[in-house]
Amino acid sequence: MPLFLNNDEVDQLITMKDTMEALEILYREMGQGAAVTAPRSDVHTPTAAAANAEGPMAHYLKSMSGASPHFGTAALRFSSDIVAWRDSGGGMRREKLPLLPGQRWMGIILLFSSANGELLAVMNDGVLQRFRVGGANGVSTKYLARADAETVGLIGSGWQAGTQVLAVCEARKIKKIKVFSPTKANRENFARVTSAKVGIEIIPVDSYEAAAKDVDILITSTNSRQPFIGKWALREGLHISAMQRDEFDDEALLACQPLVLHTHSIENNVTSSALAHFERADFTLRDHPTARGIDWKSLPTLADLLAGRVKGRENDRQVTGFVNNLGMGAQFAAVGKKVYDAARAKGLGREVPGEWFTQDVHP
Amino acid sequence: MPLFLNNDEVDQLITMKDTMEALEILYREMGQGAAVTAPRSDVHTPTAAAANAEGPMAHYLKSMSGASPHFGTAALRFSSDIVAWRDSGGGMRREKLPLLPGQRWMGIILLFSSANGELLAVMNDGVLQRFRVGGANGVSTKYLARADAETVGLIGSGWQAGTQVLAVCEARKIKKIKVFSPTKANRENFARVTSAKVGIEIIPVDSYEAAAKDVDILITSTNSRQPFIGKWALREGLHISAMQRDEFDDEALLACQPLVLHTHSIENNVTSSALAHFERADFTLRDHPTARGIDWKSLPTLADLLAGRVKGRENDRQVTGFVNNLGMGAQFAAVGKKVYDAARAKGLGREVPGEWFTQDVHP
Repeated sequence: MPLFLNNDEVDQLITMKDTMEALEILYREMGQGAAVTAPRSDVHTPTAAAANAEGPMAHYLKSMSGASPHFGTAALRFSSDIVAWRDSGGGMRREKLPLLPGQRWMGIILLFSSANGELLAVMNDGVLQRFRVGGANGVSTKYLARADAETVGLIGSGWQAGTQVLAVCEARKIKKIKVFSPTKANRENFARVTSAKVGIEIIPVDSYEAAAKDVDILITSTNSRQPFIGKWALREGLHISAMQRDEFDDEALLACQPLVLHTHSIENNVTSSALAHFERADFTLRDHPTARGIDWKSLPTLADLLAGRVKGRENDRQVTGFVNNLGMGAQFAAVGKKVYDAARAKGLGREVPGEWFTQDVHP
Repeated sequence: MPLFLNNDEVDQLITMKDTMEALEILYREMGQGAAVTAPRSDVHTPTAAAANAEGPMAHYLKSMSGASPHFGTAALRFSSDIVAWRDSGGGMRREKLPLLPGQRWMGIILLFSSANGELLAVMNDGVLQRFRVGGANGVSTKYLARADAETVGLIGSGWQAGTQVLAVCEARKIKKIKVFSPTKANRENFARVTSAKVGIEIIPVDSYEAAAKDVDILITSTNSRQPFIGKWALREGLHISAMQRDEFDDEALLACQPLVLHTHSIENNVTSSALAHFERADFTLRDHPTARGIDWKSLPTLADLLAGRVKGRENDRQVTGFVNNLGMGAQFAAVGKKVYDAARAKGLGREVPGEWFTQDVHP
């Protein structure tokens, strides 16, 4: 019977250790061609919610899928949102509006058994999403950072920064973390709460330059659309761990050896959109990434690295880099199975009859 | 609160009239660029179910989506199946195995409101699938067959043939239908049951040539992978209505003016597959369509026809044709809304709390 799990439950069940173990297996499987991830599908259409809105809005149905033979699972993740484009210094940014009852959003992971096809679980994606993002950076850090790395600079203290700290602490024996984010109260609060959680000293600093100075690992966890970290931040032996591709500039990224991407699937994503149909011309000013001077397709992926097709770090002087450029549906098949197994072991979640999702015909 | 509807309930709620009305609006909307459909995503991976199997097997996660602003809905349809490839005269055929408890399959339509994003319904796809296939042929017949068409030849008496009869009877005042399928008992049973349902004379005949002879509309509803109907079957003023592209040969199809496709999206479908990883080389002998000498991309679609970009029938002598070459996710957004509204009006279905599918964060 399919198990419904909400974010509170996922939060009780998931660990960064499990997440990174699952992803490490997955990337190796992907490198061997056994696990697969499908391009994301984005469907945008006009929405009745836009009737009295000031700016451009749309309904946005997103879906992505993938499967891991090792875990015996496949996953389909979807979200259904009303999105609005807002001008926010440096370009238009897409915001998801909480229009569901109780001012909520919808983001779901469907986890299937690939042994018999059955639907195992229906999970909220909020918590799992943070862990799989942090976990991807964590696995790359495990393979690319210096073995004796112990100091971290973290830029960003938002939604994703907490799991970045969990991940880097899982990958290396970290002793000290400096954190910067623009709002003083936010970075101080983040440092206090997160330090208590991981038992490591976390020091708020008042500039990103200060956060980046004299560290072994530099992590970015921002939503910047304009690169703001250059070669000035690189020192011998550094590993840079970027949560997305628009934080480090071209020169900084190209100085990394190797520079590893999460995936190339961004090139294949499919946008099926009625945006051209909208009346407002500014609707086309979407939050597309900054144009960059990097041939992303030529870069190795984490799957290439774990399958041994590219060399990782070879000495303590080189600068290495990882860019978590885009997520993959297959991550939810791997990490989702860990969460599902933990839920069954602890008896958490709610069930509906399996027949609600099955039928006696196959069209 | 999301409404769960099973096939029995959908069967009570759906009508061919509603289906064709919804699809007609949808195709016009698509022709105008307002409604959208996304390419289908197919993920195949190795399955533990294959351990003791004789032939090649895989887990197959399929998903497709689309949206209709007119209906204020978006739909995501998915299925999770164990599939096996079997040699069946003329090529390998993919079969879905009923491995879910109770020997069942899984095929679900998720229907969303594009006004606020909420999940409206979770429906079995079996019945709706038949109606949307028949409905697409029905809409094309409405626009392409002679206004006075009254006799039909039907080749096939299987799962999809019943809705093809409902559709052609909705499109024209039909007086007589001849049906052929290879097994005598099947065609006789089909004729008896379906005739009682639509109140029209249905005569079983003992060859497909006999079914095709002297009719105004010729419908195919088979799973043939080898074209078996040639130009010999065409007579002045005929409309041919094919359920898939491998029933009529090139010469017959190219004699149609116009020859209209359901969609071009087959060209964009995305297969993300670990099939190459499988040990058995014959796994690659998949059920791909016969190579054809037709430039499918150059043909107009039903959306083109309804938006007025191509001419339909201009006289009573020309032969017209429609090929329902592939489905579209957007069909479920349109027809699904009709079913959902009917279910709410009649109070059918089961609900789960909306919170089971929503969250207070947006990743």
